[in-house]
Amino acid sequence: MTDTPAREVQLVSRPVGEPTAADFAVVDTELPTGEVVVRNTWMSVDPYMRNRMRDVKSYVPPFALGAALDGGAAGEVVSSTAASHPVGATVLHGLGWRTHAAGPASAFRVVDTSVAAPQAYLGVLGMPGLTAWAGLTAVAGLQPGETVFVSAAAGAVGSLVGQIVKLRGGRVVGSAGSAEKVAWLRELGFDAAFDYHDGVLPQLREAAPEGIDVYFDNVGGEHLEAAIDVLKVHGRAVICGMISLYNATEPAVAPRNLSQVIGKRLRLEGMLVSDHHHLQDAFVAEVAPALTDGRLVARETVVEGLDAAPEAFIGLLAGANTGKMLVRL
Amino acid sequence: MTDTPAREVQLVSRPVGEPTAADFAVVDTELPTGEVVVRNTWMSVDPYMRNRMRDVKSYVPPFALGAALDGGAAGEVVSSTAASHPVGATVLHGLGWRTHAAGPASAFRVVDTSVAAPQAYLGVLGMPGLTAWAGLTAVAGLQPGETVFVSAAAGAVGSLVGQIVKLRGGRVVGSAGSAEKVAWLRELGFDAAFDYHDGVLPQLREAAPEGIDVYFDNVGGEHLEAAIDVLKVHGRAVICGMISLYNATEPAVAPRNLSQVIGKRLRLEGMLVSDHHHLQDAFVAEVAPALTDGRLVARETVVEGLDAAPEAFIGLLAGANTGKMLVRL
Repeated sequence: MTDTPAREVQLVSRPVGEPTAADFAVVDTELPTGEVVVRNTWMSVDPYMRNRMRDVKSYVPPFALGAALDGGAAGEVVSSTAASHPVGATVLHGLGWRTHAAGPASAFRVVDTSVAAPQAYLGVLGMPGLTAWAGLTAVAGLQPGETVFVSAAAGAVGSLVGQIVKLRGGRVVGSAGSAEKVAWLRELGFDAAFDYHDGVLPQLREAAPEGIDVYFDNVGGEHLEAAIDVLKVHGRAVICGMISLYNATEPAVAPRNLSQVIGKRLRLEGMLVSDHHHLQDAFVAEVAPALTDGRLVARETVVEGLDAAPEAFIGLLAGANTGKMLVRL
Repeated sequence: MTDTPAREVQLVSRPVGEPTAADFAVVDTELPTGEVVVRNTWMSVDPYMRNRMRDVKSYVPPFALGAALDGGAAGEVVSSTAASHPVGATVLHGLGWRTHAAGPASAFRVVDTSVAAPQAYLGVLGMPGLTAWAGLTAVAGLQPGETVFVSAAAGAVGSLVGQIVKLRGGRVVGSAGSAEKVAWLRELGFDAAFDYHDGVLPQLREAAPEGIDVYFDNVGGEHLEAAIDVLKVHGRAVICGMISLYNATEPAVAPRNLSQVIGKRLRLEGMLVSDHHHLQDAFVAEVAPALTDGRLVARETVVEGLDAAPEAFIGLLAGANTGKMLVRL
């Protein structure tokens, strides 16, 4: 236990357009109590959280104002009456953006830090990793030798999408938001990569002159429109995210070429990782060995301290991260 | 054989926006010769033909200027050296909009007029019928008890979609373009039907307050946008046609709510009937008996004479037909 008061990050107003620091407050709280009490060491910063800031019905309830933001986190058990969760164990949970979390043992999953570092369970071996793996495997039905285009390719999900395609002998094209990110994608083994600021469609056409079989969409808008133009007959688009729209205050007008889905018999399919937890073991069986022997690389962008979490989130939406965005406490 | 000169309908200019009579010419030709010569009795008038009038790469080549339009037709063999295709037999073919067609026997399929009238093979037992059946069965994967919304519901495909859903015990909502068509849909057994001129989304919401499982899209644009709003989690949209866009000169701006595919895990899938010919026997096995015993009704809108074919086509795009649009020669 510690004498330091507990603290948490609250949403205090619903952002319109880009979130600002004023939409968040970091406040002191009582140290929470429960069957298991955890001191957080890592917090996950994820694009989907932007949608929970809107007060609309969606697949998860919106964040409440004046309460801590939920979200993925990892920490160390500091107090426990559950034999399954001993003091000192590293656990994962979804209680989010606070220094300490408490609750029943069932709210916390003990992880083995001899396999991977705690924060890996928030990234490459966690939600973003399973998203990439299940999107390619269960939603797109990726076949050997196919060509995949992935947007936000230097992000936590996108960088894994590309590397999984390469592990399976496919061809992958990625788009990202800076020259540095593009250079990193090439290091990772992407067959082609480009900065979307220089135009999506012409660069995609040049990178995939024969077309693409699968588009893994993390961006929406202009990227999706370009992908529809370049998808081959019977191509598939996995619609995983649309980060280009998350701060939008007007409805998106693209894609304007959706009628191509008929002639090319395209399939566009939305996904949420929550439908795919039953694939966790198969996913880890492929990805963990590749991570251990270095065939697959998981990069992290780490921001220090609870106070910096709002800034990390605002940065994430603007592309400040390469790989998984994390806050270290 | 006949002394009447043969005649054909040619495309003479590529329409911009709505086609006009000036885009077509009806011209005299030589009586064609070949292994089999057919005097046409019925011609099929289909929305997809509008797309073939554009000079763009698509799933079928564009119509050539100054040549007869291809398309479905039925006729009677008037000259033949093929034992399989005797004089007097009724045949189907794709040689389209002309009084006489000729070619190798393999270009013509003999049909049994004791089962159904010749023109039924252009409609309910032909391409539009298989489109409806395969779209529901193979693309949407329709399940018992599901609710389906179909647009252009009084058309050749839409009226069959709705009736097949009812044959299978589902619930169906249809939209059409006039009070008369809406009344006919109710006669057919549609659970709800509305005139889209009075607004799609509010009427769809009222007709399907619990949402829809499947949207069968023949219209695109505003209809697709409304359907995305109303589709349930894991809903499917079969994208079969987008007739609202066929005459458009600007790219479509709807749907603007495509991001809903993520949270609701929607699947939007384009279809062409040409991928589904292997289902013909299964389709006929379900639909033909229902047609014979009156559980399923196939209506036709018939225009008389080759000269009227362009007008029939222009009318089709404006919704002049109820059920299958045909030209009788």
